[in-house]
Amino acid sequence: MKPLLFSLYAEPSLLNSLAQALEAEVASMEHREFPDGETYMRITTKCDQRSAIILANFHQPNSKFLPLVFLCENLRELGIESITLICPYLPYMRQDIKFHEGEAVTSRFFSKLLNQQVDRLLTIDPHLHRYHSLDQIYTMETHTLQANPLIADWIRNNVEDALIVGPDSESEQWAASVAEMVGCPYLILEKHRFGDKNVSVSAPNAQDHANLTPILIDDIISTGRTMIRTAEALVSEGLKKPICIGVHALFSDDAYGKMLEAPIAKILSCNTVPHSSNSIDITPLIANTLNP
Amino acid sequence: MKPLLFSLYAEPSLLNSLAQALEAEVASMEHREFPDGETYMRITTKCDQRSAIILANFHQPNSKFLPLVFLCENLRELGIESITLICPYLPYMRQDIKFHEGEAVTSRFFSKLLNQQVDRLLTIDPHLHRYHSLDQIYTMETHTLQANPLIADWIRNNVEDALIVGPDSESEQWAASVAEMVGCPYLILEKHRFGDKNVSVSAPNAQDHANLTPILIDDIISTGRTMIRTAEALVSEGLKKPICIGVHALFSDDAYGKMLEAPIAKILSCNTVPHSSNSIDITPLIANTLNP
Repeated sequence: MKPLLFSLYAEPSLLNSLAQALEAEVASMEHREFPDGETYMRITTKCDQRSAIILANFHQPNSKFLPLVFLCENLRELGIESITLICPYLPYMRQDIKFHEGEAVTSRFFSKLLNQQVDRLLTIDPHLHRYHSLDQIYTMETHTLQANPLIADWIRNNVEDALIVGPDSESEQWAASVAEMVGCPYLILEKHRFGDKNVSVSAPNAQDHANLTPILIDDIISTGRTMIRTAEALVSEGLKKPICIGVHALFSDDAYGKMLEAPIAKILSCNTVPHSSNSIDITPLIANTLNP
Repeated sequence: MKPLLFSLYAEPSLLNSLAQALEAEVASMEHREFPDGETYMRITTKCDQRSAIILANFHQPNSKFLPLVFLCENLRELGIESITLICPYLPYMRQDIKFHEGEAVTSRFFSKLLNQQVDRLLTIDPHLHRYHSLDQIYTMETHTLQANPLIADWIRNNVEDALIVGPDSESEQWAASVAEMVGCPYLILEKHRFGDKNVSVSAPNAQDHANLTPILIDDIISTGRTMIRTAEALVSEGLKKPICIGVHALFSDDAYGKMLEAPIAKILSCNTVPHSSNSIDITPLIANTLNP
């Protein structure tokens, strides 16, 4: 029997392309909030002895967690045999240690909750910084997929004379890997961060590449300030306006508007988080893992 | 050593009066959201071998649940010996059965999550309809407190010639009990509900009490429509404008504004949910239970 595919705040177009690629049945479900903010949820597809796949958009995660628990608990009661969570953007990966005494290491507490609900987790480019693998905090079966090959495909098909630019040393592995796949050079800049929103970037020797099209790549675009500073630094040193590519389009507050006003030629993202900049479809990545 | 009192979305004045009544120390804690909506939390008071009391406002509960889990998990790690949750308004009590096949019985799923985090729960007038007691879904130690005596005190001190009016048959136990405490008559009306927001009320024989001050009491004021319809029905039959008292001031959407425009003399509530209508302080009720 076909697996049942459930949407939790997922973008309908991604849901439908995944259903097709996975040969899954999109389940019928009613999901709304009462006026007091409590969740109502009803599953009207027969679940008994079937397997469930949940496609969840977990950006701005706090209000979305209880609905996930309600869905999972309800699925178990209705006889579902296994639950796979596709969470293209996995939240709560940034607080991976106590930077100061008394801090909640939310990555660990969040994973503990999720471990209770789900049998298998697929995610794309989780923010692994001090953790080397999701297995350090997730006890369930996990699959960590990488968007690099899809991003490289897009660049190869759309940009001649590309120069991959990583905005900071953390992004070097990305930039180098994508540059190799595209078959083009890359350049790593230096980022200095002061607080949540205050960032400066230096771009030494950028002028050596004035004839190329700079491409900035990062796993997460959040405030966008790093990319804006980088674009300004590149342009002020005589390079072309860069193309900015983020895997996860978080765009907090007015970040997208500010980026549109900056010296940036084009902004695009994978469709891991629904956003108007989504241009690179992650469906093949997920389908290749679940239906190899 | 004094217990440590933590606020989770609680009203500062209630927190402070509780701290005084319970002889508790208000704990020092940093709690904010990153731009991507994830919670940052840090406890800066020494917790080792102490007991914790969390005063939580859980109205509009979905976004508040993960922060509660982060707080509880962090407290355990920091050496707290027991956690008492004071949740004056307990959410997720209304979906207590499957009204239709496939519905999530969220009251049960929510209590299961809370049972994992907390040792003891105090709440005021939870919406017990088909459940007769919290013990049917809460496995931890629970204390169900009733605001009736406080409401009766307020009426006795502020209203001569009171007539307690219950807006529907569900509220009869309330109305009768308060009327007895106040020493005044009561009247029960009939409510007809169509969907979340559509309600009509009939008030037979109300004109027999034209010289009294009607007082409407309900556990929850949500859309306010029941109280508005009741007030209109009472006034149209020649009674005075009623005083409306709710234990829990949920006031969804524009409910409070609509009530202020209705033929209602005064709107008041207990301070279980922070709201400008709060007039009846629940501090003594909680203090009497925790420090009898």
